[in-house]
Amino acid sequence: MKIYDWRLAPNPRRVRMFLSEKSLDVPLEEVGGENMRLKPDFVARFDPYATTPMLELDDGSCISEAMAICRYFEELHPEPRLLGQDAKERAIVDMWERRAYEGAMFALSEMIRNTHAAFADRGLPGTAEPIRQVADVVERGEGRLRRFTRSFDKQLAANRFAAGESFTVADITAFCALDFLNKGMKVPIPAEFASLRRWYHEVESRPSARASA
Amino acid sequence: MKIYDWRLAPNPRRVRMFLSEKSLDVPLEEVGGENMRLKPDFVARFDPYATTPMLELDDGSCISEAMAICRYFEELHPEPRLLGQDAKERAIVDMWERRAYEGAMFALSEMIRNTHAAFADRGLPGTAEPIRQVADVVERGEGRLRRFTRSFDKQLAANRFAAGESFTVADITAFCALDFLNKGMKVPIPAEFASLRRWYHEVESRPSARASA
Repeated sequence: MKIYDWRLAPNPRRVRMFLSEKSLDVPLEEVGGENMRLKPDFVARFDPYATTPMLELDDGSCISEAMAICRYFEELHPEPRLLGQDAKERAIVDMWERRAYEGAMFALSEMIRNTHAAFADRGLPGTAEPIRQVADVVERGEGRLRRFTRSFDKQLAANRFAAGESFTVADITAFCALDFLNKGMKVPIPAEFASLRRWYHEVESRPSARASA
Repeated sequence: MKIYDWRLAPNPRRVRMFLSEKSLDVPLEEVGGENMRLKPDFVARFDPYATTPMLELDDGSCISEAMAICRYFEELHPEPRLLGQDAKERAIVDMWERRAYEGAMFALSEMIRNTHAAFADRGLPGTAEPIRQVADVVERGEGRLRRFTRSFDKQLAANRFAAGESFTVADITAFCALDFLNKGMKVPIPAEFASLRRWYHEVESRPSARASA
């Protein structure tokens, strides 16, 4: 078993941070290449879904999508529970994880992939087919991000973590995206979101945040 | 317990079809209003995430996001299993469900919300904040759809359903999106995708497809 990883990208960090929270050690193979591109042989093998993280099982099956991978490890190693304790909490975690994904991770992808020169003709991740940058998609990403941060700040005013009192994968997705926005793209959390900033600094100080950075 | 539903929209149909496959009967409350808008009191209550489907539990908790709702019912009523039989199959189902969501459901949303007059200033679902239409996002949606259908057709050349021999929620997401594209938006499945067309007609004939239409 191994995971194809891209150290610099925010999406595969979700799985590294998840594994660190569970104290699991899975071999990583770096497939990030030159100029913010994945290595050509990785792209050729998995096109049109050559995305990281990608889990390869011992039988050769390959699983992409960070949450599919996290769910797999949660099932094999349930403790500590990062997807919720019971059916209702799991639904709330899943809801906030999806909001964080679309509102922050997806948003930053729209923002960086449609402006940065390194992503010319790579408007969507993982495919060798040229997909041109669309400058106006940046505005769409910013709209997504604004909606999410406003709403997440309210949620964190009433809850220690995204889905309540326990740290979960919803926090991981939100943190990996907001940390990349802050440190990698110089888009900090607005000062008026005090609860979101309190949460950000708390998560930033977890050992899993440092180990996965 | 009840579900806030929007009969005409493709996304809430996923939950109706899922419940039909499980022979579960959950009360639905229609919140679709005039001119392809949700009713104003629903939007005001849940803004900025006033989206359908929305599950309200007896304790008043509200869960949005179709997959969070499906997962909740899978846990309460495991049979027939629609999320996979074991950890590996569940990961594969989750992977294809996410590809279907982003590659077809999300794609059609980008395509219709950025062109149709009824969605002016509603480029993103569920928020009262005006988010203007961006014509170029349509091209991005078409790129997503092209990638997904090409790849899904290959998957279905080797498998009866999205994730193997069993019908799962990955089929539901893909079908609800492609059926809306075909019948509601007049974007049929291209003729060269023979395996995808075979699958589409097979899923279309399931009782759950008719009951949820």
